Amino acid sequence: MDEFALIRRYFHHRQGEDVVLGPGDDAALLSPPAGEQLVMTLDTSVAGRHFPEDMPAADIGYRCLAVNLSDLAAMGATPRWFLLSLTLPQADPDWLRDFSAGLFELADQAGISLVGGDVTRGPLNIAIQATGSVLPGRALRRDGARPGQTLAVTGAPGLGGLGLRHWRAGMRDSQSARHFARPRPALEWGAALAGRAGAALDVSDGLLQDLGHILSASGDLGAELVLADLPVNDELAALEAEDRWALQLSGGDDYGLLFTWPAGVAVPEGARAIGRITDGGGVQLHYPDGRVSDAEPGGWRHF
Amino acid sequence: MDEFALIRRYFHHRQGEDVVLGPGDDAALLSPPAGEQLVMTLDTSVAGRHFPEDMPAADIGYRCLAVNLSDLAAMGATPRWFLLSLTLPQADPDWLRDFSAGLFELADQAGISLVGGDVTRGPLNIAIQATGSVLPGRALRRDGARPGQTLAVTGAPGLGGLGLRHWRAGMRDSQSARHFARPRPALEWGAALAGRAGAALDVSDGLLQDLGHILSASGDLGAELVLADLPVNDELAALEAEDRWALQLSGGDDYGLLFTWPAGVAVPEGARAIGRITDGGGVQLHYPDGRVSDAEPGGWRHF
Repeated sequence: MDEFALIRRYFHHRQGEDVVLGPGDDAALLSPPAGEQLVMTLDTSVAGRHFPEDMPAADIGYRCLAVNLSDLAAMGATPRWFLLSLTLPQADPDWLRDFSAGLFELADQAGISLVGGDVTRGPLNIAIQATGSVLPGRALRRDGARPGQTLAVTGAPGLGGLGLRHWRAGMRDSQSARHFARPRPALEWGAALAGRAGAALDVSDGLLQDLGHILSASGDLGAELVLADLPVNDELAALEAEDRWALQLSGGDDYGLLFTWPAGVAVPEGARAIGRITDGGGVQLHYPDGRVSDAEPGGWRHF
Repeated sequence: MDEFALIRRYFHHRQGEDVVLGPGDDAALLSPPAGEQLVMTLDTSVAGRHFPEDMPAADIGYRCLAVNLSDLAAMGATPRWFLLSLTLPQADPDWLRDFSAGLFELADQAGISLVGGDVTRGPLNIAIQATGSVLPGRALRRDGARPGQTLAVTGAPGLGGLGLRHWRAGMRDSQSARHFARPRPALEWGAALAGRAGAALDVSDGLLQDLGHILSASGDLGAELVLADLPVNDELAALEAEDRWALQLSGGDDYGLLFTWPAGVAVPEGARAIGRITDGGGVQLHYPDGRVSDAEPGGWRHF
């Protein structure tokens, strides 16, 4: 099967009304929503680095789109269109069928249309570029934190890291492992926080490293982080404290949102306040026994 | 150097005024031109498949952007923004310096801003997603050919194929080899033809295969192609006729535009009429000795 036949067979799917021309021409032709800004991200997933070599193709398809939608969520954007570039060692029909099923399962849930891309031969590499839109002035940025604001999260930091551990140990039906294989992009949260939160991003590199991104983008601010306030699921709660803290602070692949919120105002229901922004001094970790210590930002290294 | 430092060092570059927020947040934030449609393409280049393993990094950077800009040109779009996903076996400072220099040389010429992307580790793989804009109704599409229209090209089909041959033979300063290493996207031609040509695309897979795309998209049309009318440079002119025809008809990497034009109207100066669209019967090749024969569409296979 050549590239064109393969794309027709596995990657033609229903599209939104804002798609004038989808796959099949030199490029896609799209009608952007009038008066909105565009939000664009491009993230590549490499087998063995961003997902396990033995992950089922349907999970790979779901997951590669999810990490891009998570970036749109972190900006408060509404998903519109995505393009997919698939580099494959060979054109395996079963793999392609499953991959595209997982991909479109999430695309349909999120209301995003596949409008183009390419398929080529080489070591497995999956690049997805996703575009969303947001009203001017409402995008969630990393540089909007201010001293005194409350620090809050959605989801449970550490869940992705525990999920990867479970996956490697063969416990692939645990809640954490399912979260690792199919993270849910926090699109509803992004929409709810847009225009309201101070700063926001998605927790993909580990809580401390991502908090560091907010603090440096907002001008060398600091933060207090209360470990006992970090939300957990049963599987995280069952761990020894030191082990749990390491996952909560430095595990990646969580894909909840970390955001700041006006001081003295309750955070939206379902999110959790976990500390506050200070005007410098790095990140102070508050332990349940009253101990306070400096944290070194760190987490998943991409390169 | 981690991913973030590497991006700051090699990939922060001046940006257009329509970039609200460039690299550094979860996603880029952009102001689209009011009342225009968007044109989006994503093309991946794999070492050893889309460019020779030993191509200088500056040429790789230039070329990977050029093939995407060529898709924007083929739609008649004005370039706006691009995102780059770079998968690298290692972070070699010399390679990155040269790659980004070649990339930004063309980006600056074309007036397109790098607004995001990622860098990750793995076998060399370069994905670029480029976005342009075009006024509604003016985009150049593949499905606009009609019987009787003139068939025309810009550039010289076969130049890319001859350039690859020269490159492999070590003749890297020939005009064709330079064209192969640094193809010029036909952006001015795209702008000049937008809203005027019938159908158009860029010749990337070989003239016959790309002509086949126009004919099938426009409804199983046919074409007459006059071989003596194909434009040549001195290097193509010096070849034996059979050898030249093979390159002209099936070589890839030309990146001129192939378009259709109203019957009886002279094609714009600098383009060349090479035949006409018929209402079926495949593609008829007209040889200089008066012979006419059927052509089988064929060319570069991506997969």
